[in-house]
Amino acid sequence: MCRQPEDCGRHMECACYIDAAPLVSMRHNRATKFFKQKANPMSAEARIVELKLELPKAPKPAGTYLPVVVIGELCYVSGHGPLKSDDTMMTGRVGQDLTEEQGVAAARQVGLAILATLQKQLGSLDRVVRVVKVLGMVNSTAEFKNHPKVINGFSDLMVEIWGENGRAARSAVGMGSLPGNIAVEIEAIFQVH
Amino acid sequence: MCRQPEDCGRHMECACYIDAAPLVSMRHNRATKFFKQKANPMSAEARIVELKLELPKAPKPAGTYLPVVVIGELCYVSGHGPLKSDDTMMTGRVGQDLTEEQGVAAARQVGLAILATLQKQLGSLDRVVRVVKVLGMVNSTAEFKNHPKVINGFSDLMVEIWGENGRAARSAVGMGSLPGNIAVEIEAIFQVH
Amino acid sequence: MCRQPEDCGRHMECACYIDAAPLVSMRHNRATKFFKQKANPMSAEARIVELKLELPKAPKPAGTYLPVVVIGELCYVSGHGPLKSDDTMMTGRVGQDLTEEQGVAAARQVGLAILATLQKQLGSLDRVVRVVKVLGMVNSTAEFKNHPKVINGFSDLMVEIWGENGRAARSAVGMGSLPGNIAVEIEAIFQVH
Repeated sequence: MCRQPEDCGRHMECACYIDAAPLVSMRHNRATKFFKQKANPMSAEARIVELKLELPKAPKPAGTYLPVVVIGELCYVSGHGPLKSDDTMMTGRVGQDLTEEQGVAAARQVGLAILATLQKQLGSLDRVVRVVKVLGMVNSTAEFKNHPKVINGFSDLMVEIWGENGRAARSAVGMGSLPGNIAVEIEAIFQVH
Repeated sequence: MCRQPEDCGRHMECACYIDAAPLVSMRHNRATKFFKQKANPMSAEARIVELKLELPKAPKPAGTYLPVVVIGELCYVSGHGPLKSDDTMMTGRVGQDLTEEQGVAAARQVGLAILATLQKQLGSLDRVVRVVKVLGMVNSTAEFKNHPKVINGFSDLMVEIWGENGRAARSAVGMGSLPGNIAVEIEAIFQVH
Repeated sequence: MCRQPEDCGRHMECACYIDAAPLVSMRHNRATKFFKQKANPMSAEARIVELKLELPKAPKPAGTYLPVVVIGELCYVSGHGPLKSDDTMMTGRVGQDLTEEQGVAAARQVGLAILATLQKQLGSLDRVVRVVKVLGMVNSTAEFKNHPKVINGFSDLMVEIWGENGRAARSAVGMGSLPGNIAVEIEAIFQVH
């Protein structure tokens, strides 16, 4: 970690510095603390207010499952769709029924739905330490190629809330079909305290 | 957690109460213990017998992988298909070759195969604390919409065995294709002791 | 664990022996240590050299995400494509544009790209204890059936590097589409120290 000179100047992109606390030296811990203060100057709950984000009502599971399960410091979040504040879902296939930009908007809306779930299930978004892992699933045509751009709609929202701690490991892929023909489904793992 | 009054009456649906042990108050711990006793009055092995479930022979991996890998308290279970007791798989695409109900039956059969694997690999199903995370993948047409109902075939079986601890975080989605044209493939994470 | 006689002679296939350290008896620990020495006689870095593997340059994320996130002993690796040393990706749909063998080669190339990422992000591949979980996603036709064989291209490489510790829990499935029409995308979890 940080044995390659080019990494030393950009701690904001280096997850290892932030997460692998027992492995980093005192110098790195100081750097990390400095970074965290800089990148996340206010609480997630305060950010929701400051950004004037309108969260939908936390969705009820559409089957035999739970919205989240917390094991130790890992919060596993069930696959969420683009639930709007009027309780309807954004539906359609990207590249056919929806444009790429509409796909981006759908992915952002999934993010708002997941924030609503975390707020309800955890009591406060301020219990979130970071986003760990994201699986972004796009309802797209066989020819569609820009899945990462679509899922950025979700990931950019996470960074708006948690700064660099909103940046996670991620896959962005195209599905054969999604429940109720929703445009995007995303499941994620959050680190919580 | 439990700061919203509407949660207080339904601990059975609130994963946080059950899992985040260090975070819950004494009162909640008592509630959780009471719930666990109520929901899971007998061992998983005893439930298998009581429900007269017929498990297939634990499948051998069809490639370079292991049936399960255990890291700490998390048991990662490889993707399983709907293996029957006669050693054949339930195949076909839901919405084309198979009805929705046949899809549900296939998902339940995946559950029986995973139970067989856990029993063999862990020595006993009684080492399972709860189901943590499920990824339910349906071999379905592009128009299919009821993936959650299909994967309930798996999840309902888990609840039959482990009560509310069988309820997990979950995604249910449609794949372009699955190995050997199996109808459903499910991977999961179990908490074990 | 190891309560079934047929398991006793093949510890190399039994993940529980290796991982569930607190659960195994002294006798099993001795067996495990012996196994590890036998299966992994040299470091992963030395294996890369010995096998004359040519790693591509570690890919930069194609969106708002990180190559890896480490939480405790788990290293979550983002979905990687078959990045070649000339900085291009292997593209096309298996069963249509690519043969099965070309799919296998693409999955192996994904493995080389992930090794490059781990080397850069962790500082050394010798920090890897084992491969824990693999999700192998094949860009394939609706009729394709041999996803496990394709993803073996990745898994066999892991076993070349880490011996039996390279064998993981795994799913191998067919996607509707993948970013930039890449042939294979793989995300994985590694245990690290």
